[in-house]
Amino acid sequence: MSIKIGIYGYGNLGRGVELAVAQNPDMTAVGVFTRRAPDSVKTLTGIPVFAANDAPNMLGKIDVMIICGGSATDLPQQTPALARYFNVVDSFDTHANIPTHVASVEAVAKQAKTTALVSAGWDPGMFSIARLYADAILPEGKDYTFWGKGVSQGHSDAIRRIEGVEDARQYTIPVAEALNAVRSGCSPQLTTAQKHERECFVVAKEGADLARIEREIKTMPNYFADYHTTVHFISKAEMQEKHSGLPHGGAVIRNGVTGMEKQNKHVVEFSLKLGSNPEFTASVLVACARATYRLNEKGEYGCKTMLDVPPAYLSIKPREELIATLL
Amino acid sequence: MSIKIGIYGYGNLGRGVELAVAQNPDMTAVGVFTRRAPDSVKTLTGIPVFAANDAPNMLGKIDVMIICGGSATDLPQQTPALARYFNVVDSFDTHANIPTHVASVEAVAKQAKTTALVSAGWDPGMFSIARLYADAILPEGKDYTFWGKGVSQGHSDAIRRIEGVEDARQYTIPVAEALNAVRSGCSPQLTTAQKHERECFVVAKEGADLARIEREIKTMPNYFADYHTTVHFISKAEMQEKHSGLPHGGAVIRNGVTGMEKQNKHVVEFSLKLGSNPEFTASVLVACARATYRLNEKGEYGCKTMLDVPPAYLSIKPREELIATLL
Repeated sequence: MSIKIGIYGYGNLGRGVELAVAQNPDMTAVGVFTRRAPDSVKTLTGIPVFAANDAPNMLGKIDVMIICGGSATDLPQQTPALARYFNVVDSFDTHANIPTHVASVEAVAKQAKTTALVSAGWDPGMFSIARLYADAILPEGKDYTFWGKGVSQGHSDAIRRIEGVEDARQYTIPVAEALNAVRSGCSPQLTTAQKHERECFVVAKEGADLARIEREIKTMPNYFADYHTTVHFISKAEMQEKHSGLPHGGAVIRNGVTGMEKQNKHVVEFSLKLGSNPEFTASVLVACARATYRLNEKGEYGCKTMLDVPPAYLSIKPREELIATLL
Repeated sequence: MSIKIGIYGYGNLGRGVELAVAQNPDMTAVGVFTRRAPDSVKTLTGIPVFAANDAPNMLGKIDVMIICGGSATDLPQQTPALARYFNVVDSFDTHANIPTHVASVEAVAKQAKTTALVSAGWDPGMFSIARLYADAILPEGKDYTFWGKGVSQGHSDAIRRIEGVEDARQYTIPVAEALNAVRSGCSPQLTTAQKHERECFVVAKEGADLARIEREIKTMPNYFADYHTTVHFISKAEMQEKHSGLPHGGAVIRNGVTGMEKQNKHVVEFSLKLGSNPEFTASVLVACARATYRLNEKGEYGCKTMLDVPPAYLSIKPREELIATLL
C-alpha cells in the first residue's frame, strides 16, 4: 500500500519533491497542482498535472499534500486552506511568523481531523532539531548557527536591483576563523556579520560603471555593509557555467559544559553540505509526508512541527529493523 | 513540581548523572542506590545513599530511575527487574543484543504500566538518531561512523593484560584522509581499520622488555593487528597528568544523492567532541529521563528507544517556546 502524495506548486521545490518521491518505494506521486494552465506544465517524470483549484476534488485520492509555495504570500494562505481537505506538509520558513502560522493551521486541522506538519526542511527543520537536542542535553552552553557556503536568493536579488547589473549570484560563506573558534569549544561572542562573509559574482551591462556597482553593493545597509564583502565581475557565459547550481549548507554547533567545576567542555555539531538546496529540502518534506501520514493514522490531528515527530516515523524501515541496524 | 530521579549505580556514569540532574532545574536527585555498603559511599553533591536492594521500597518516591550499570552483566538483569517498579532509563550499548534487551524490558514494562527508555547515550543514542534522520531523508546513499579521538576502555584493558604493563591508555583516532574523503561526499569504500588508527600510552613495569610489549600490542588480533598502531612508553607521572581524562567523540556522516541523474551530492554530518564521555552520556540519560516521565504521563507504556521519542519531549522548555525560539 503506497502513500499517495500530491505536489501543490511546481517550482524548484515541487520538482525536487517529484524526484524525491521517486526515490521512496513506499510512495506514489499522484500529480502536480498548479496555478498555471495545466497543459502548459510538463513534469520531469511524466506525472499528471491538475489545476490548483481542482485540488479539493481529489479528496480521498491523496494521503498527503506537500505544499511547495513561497513563505511570503503563498503558504500563509495555502496551508490552512488545504488542511481543510488533506494532511499537509509545508516548508514555511519566515522564522518570526512561525508561531502565527502554527496557530492558524492548528485551528483548521484539528477541526478537519487532518494532520499538518509545517516549517519542515533544514532551517527551520533539521537545524531546529539539532538545536533542540543539543540544548536539552547540555543546558549550560551557547548555540551557534553558520550558514553556507551557499547561494542566498535574497542577496542575489538585491544586487540585481542595482542599476547596470544584468545578473548576480551571492554566496554566504562562514568565516573560517569564527567557525574554528566555535569548533574548538571556546564559546566566543560573535555577531552574524562576524560569522559570515559575502562573495558576489556580477554580470554587468555593457558600459556600466563597475566601480559604482561595487561601491553600491558593499555599502548596501543590512545586506552587505556590515559584512566583509568581495565582488567579482564575470561574463554571462561564466555565470551560466559556474554558478547555475543552488548549493547551500551550514552548521549548528553547541558549546556546552558539565562537571563539578563545569570543567569539561563538549562540542555538538550538525552540519550540511548540500549540492542542491531545493532537492535536499524536498527530500526532508517527503520523509515528513510519511511521518504525517502515520501521525494521522494514529489520530494525532492538528498542526505539528518536526520537533513533535518521533524520528522513527520518518523512516521507511520498520521499527524492529531500525532498532537492529541503526541503534 | 520537580521530576524525582533515582540513580542506580554510582560509578563514573552515576556521578555524571548526579551532576547533570543538578544542571536541570525541573529535576531533583532523590538519591543513589548502590550494591556497596551505603555508609561507604560519599556522593558529590551530598544526596543520600541507599542500598540497591531497598529500591523497591521507594515506589512512589521516584519518578524515573536512571540505571548506571554496565552492559555486560548488570543491565540485562537490572533494567527488567527495576522496570517492574519504576520508569527507567539505561545506556545498554552492546549493539548486537539490543533487540533482545528491548524485548525483555518491553514485557515487564507493558505489564507494570511503566515506561522504559533503553540504549540511550551517544552511540547508541544520538548517533543512532543522526543515522536515522540522514537515512530517511536521503534513501540513496552511504553511511559512515567514525569514533574518536577518544579513550577506548576495552583496548586500554587489553594492553594492561600484557605481561610487564603497569598501566595503559588507548586512544581511537579517525584517520584524517578517510574522514576528509567522506566529508567531501565521494562515498569511498572503507573498513573500520581504514577509518581508525590506535595510539597507545603505556607505563611499563621496571625492567620490562619494551620491544616485546610493543610487538605484543601491535600484533594482537582484532584489537590492534589490523590497525595502524603507535605505542608510546611514558612515566606514571605523565600518565596521571596528561591521560587521566575520559574524552571521546566521533562523527556520523551520510553521503547521499538526489536529482534526475543523481547528480547532486549531499553530505549530512553529526559530530561530537566530548571532554568527558561519561558526563556527556549522563547528560543524555537525564534529558531522556524527562522524556520518559512525559511518555509515561501520556500512557505510553513499554520499552522505548531514543528513535521513538519526539525531540520536544527531551527539553525543559515548553513547546511554544521551542517553536518560537529554536524552530
